[in-house]
Amino acid sequence: MTQPFSAARGRLLGLGVGPGDPELITIKALRLLRCAPVVAYFVAKGKKGNAFGIIETHLSDSQVRLPLVYPVTTEALEPPLSYEAIIADFYDTAAEVVASHLDAGRDVAVICEGDPFFYGSYMYLHDRLAPRFEAEVVPGVCSMLGGAAVLGAPLVYRNQTLSVLSGVLPEAELKRRLEDADAAVIMKLGRNFDKVRRVLDELGLAKRALYVERATMSNQRIVPLADVDPMASPYFSLLVVPGEKWQG
Amino acid sequence: MTQPFSAARGRLLGLGVGPGDPELITIKALRLLRCAPVVAYFVAKGKKGNAFGIIETHLSDSQVRLPLVYPVTTEALEPPLSYEAIIADFYDTAAEVVASHLDAGRDVAVICEGDPFFYGSYMYLHDRLAPRFEAEVVPGVCSMLGGAAVLGAPLVYRNQTLSVLSGVLPEAELKRRLEDADAAVIMKLGRNFDKVRRVLDELGLAKRALYVERATMSNQRIVPLADVDPMASPYFSLLVVPGEKWQG
Repeated sequence: MTQPFSAARGRLLGLGVGPGDPELITIKALRLLRCAPVVAYFVAKGKKGNAFGIIETHLSDSQVRLPLVYPVTTEALEPPLSYEAIIADFYDTAAEVVASHLDAGRDVAVICEGDPFFYGSYMYLHDRLAPRFEAEVVPGVCSMLGGAAVLGAPLVYRNQTLSVLSGVLPEAELKRRLEDADAAVIMKLGRNFDKVRRVLDELGLAKRALYVERATMSNQRIVPLADVDPMASPYFSLLVVPGEKWQG
Repeated sequence: MTQPFSAARGRLLGLGVGPGDPELITIKALRLLRCAPVVAYFVAKGKKGNAFGIIETHLSDSQVRLPLVYPVTTEALEPPLSYEAIIADFYDTAAEVVASHLDAGRDVAVICEGDPFFYGSYMYLHDRLAPRFEAEVVPGVCSMLGGAAVLGAPLVYRNQTLSVLSGVLPEAELKRRLEDADAAVIMKLGRNFDKVRRVLDELGLAKRALYVERATMSNQRIVPLADVDPMASPYFSLLVVPGEKWQG
């Protein structure tokens, strides 16, 4: 960070709070969280938000809670509406709300489930605000590692390649990438579960694959792949295909 | 874990202690570390070990330190010697040393830099001991996420694919995999740095790639790719090729 910043302006803090178990926050994130005058978090309308639930008990009354409420929308919109445009507009507005606190000299801690830079909404604030304000990111335990831990599944041995894939990918691409991976983690299952399981079956990977819902959260569920109800797989579920064990 | 375990036997704990900054340990790992009667760690001969350095100040005098000292060897051995056989033998022995404490009813915390299941030596103990003893793994912040955080580099947007690659891979395979990745992290650079930089240059990825040595440690160094001395790149360095920014 070579650009000079005025001492009077607040700092943007992207704090990873871990995958769900409140004890899986780092000491650093907790320390910075406790001294932040403003605590911001992304949340669906009418929900408390997973990240907020993880850290709620650590907040004092004097800290400002700043929910950044996602617009109610869907990825399947007819033109001239588009999901991308609505979401981009929302991130623009959220960034300006956060910027108003920073301009007033208040640090803003944006709490992020998992890690801020690993598929986190914080990234969209960071890209908008880091050029204008001092920003610090505290990495967190991501859901993928939380999942591997509770599944008891070592992920990658020695020089194996790990592919982190989204369940949203088209079936053919998912198949091509899984076929080429030594080890894989598939995130964002939800409605994509059936497609993903079919691909794993076709590749003969179903017996190696492990499934967990809401890893490390109090309502965590580990279910054999064959028993998962594809209509009921939540967004916060993931599949792990561990690398072949190295006897070394 | 459906198998019953005798209450008289110790538990195996694989504790991720984070990428280097002692504050990047989780509250859970710290809690379990502090009550473990035996604290084990992998270490090179004559070294203190990164993981041990991270947590040393938290230990009390009554806790047994159990260094598991790697044999002095190299991956390039002439038959009948083989690196694989020597290392496998070492892990067998290390597992039995740990097992002797577990059999005596003492919990053993194995501390792991980064995350235990993400390229960690703990995996080789886990594979040997988890079938015989109760084992719990506490995930940690891995070096890849520590690196992205200090580089200020959001890793993966929306449905982008992340490829985690070892610098040890043959040049052609490295090139093929990098060409196919939306975003990538390349670990285990060291002597492989020159080869990796050449591949990034050939693919036109050099301008997007970011390099850091010992991310989050007190001797962290961030160096422009072109300025890295390929003869002096340490093992604990990594390259991040962030996904293309999504404006959303």
